[in-house]
Amino acid sequence: MSADYDKIILGIDPGTNVMGYGVLGIKGKKPEMIVMGVIKLNKIGDHYLRLHRIYERVSGLVAQYLPDEMAVEAPFFGKNVQSMLKLGRAQGVAIAAALSRDVPIAEYAPLSVKQAITGSGAASKEQVANMLKRLLNISDDKMPSLLDATDALAVALTHFYESSKPQLPKGPKSWEQFIAQNPDKIVKR
Amino acid sequence: MSADYDKIILGIDPGTNVMGYGVLGIKGKKPEMIVMGVIKLNKIGDHYLRLHRIYERVSGLVAQYLPDEMAVEAPFFGKNVQSMLKLGRAQGVAIAAALSRDVPIAEYAPLSVKQAITGSGAASKEQVANMLKRLLNISDDKMPSLLDATDALAVALTHFYESSKPQLPKGPKSWEQFIAQNPDKIVKR
Repeated sequence: MSADYDKIILGIDPGTNVMGYGVLGIKGKKPEMIVMGVIKLNKIGDHYLRLHRIYERVSGLVAQYLPDEMAVEAPFFGKNVQSMLKLGRAQGVAIAAALSRDVPIAEYAPLSVKQAITGSGAASKEQVANMLKRLLNISDDKMPSLLDATDALAVALTHFYESSKPQLPKGPKSWEQFIAQNPDKIVKR
Repeated sequence: MSADYDKIILGIDPGTNVMGYGVLGIKGKKPEMIVMGVIKLNKIGDHYLRLHRIYERVSGLVAQYLPDEMAVEAPFFGKNVQSMLKLGRAQGVAIAAALSRDVPIAEYAPLSVKQAITGSGAASKEQVANMLKRLLNISDDKMPSLLDATDALAVALTHFYESSKPQLPKGPKSWEQFIAQNPDKIVKR
């Protein structure tokens, strides 16, 4: 699988009821959807069985698609401390599955993902899904019914955009620094 | 290691700065300390490196001591949603390390641990440590300087007490149920 692409990015939208995932393959500078879907957790009553399922499935995705990087959609604010603890555990288990195979992780707040994909941090999940469909030429029959899947693919695409931005060269901050960094350019009289 | 004991319980007190661990071995009905210590995280600047360290070290403890069960000290309330998300991630990573080797997990609130060890939910960490020392006959030189280690051993001992409580038989809740469950005891006239 990975031989066909220059880079593979696994996007994860971790939740305690539904976890979305999306796998993005990069050929040259062109991103393509490889697969997207959801891991349904809401019918699993036991909290640990949910966490186990997340761990197993994310480990499975890492083993199957061998991503070079993982991007996680991570809200930093929530309703209350209880829900944040549960969300943190779900995120932690997904992160552990990547860390155990040495896959580097980047995280993006939901607002940054919306901004990167649609140009507006106020976009709805539907708008994000429609924009993804156009950007990646996804056919109707491959669009998922649950927007957790498109959210996950969106964070993978956000990571691709962010990591392919040209890095500004780090210039000297003062003449003193410039002189220290470039002794050969200084003509001493 | 596990051959010497009837059961081994790994206790974990997960934190984002210091993680405590304690390994308890049970011979017959007698609990013994095998080891306790801390994993210091406060000098690791990067959040993911901290999570990776937790995963590696807990995986290592599971591989080395082959615990039959893991007990986690888990506060359910915290200062704010940010700190709970971080704590949840640390817990999630530690839980994943146990789940990946199919070790069952139990969790106890700090108050339940204090109650089980000292008889009082208002006990200090020092009181918990002193009581543990007496209960498990731990010599002075084996007492740790950081109380995260004794906290972790305390949650393991709490789990041993809780899991060795006699289970009350589940009796019928009504005469109708009793009759349905015991048709042979009903004399029909």
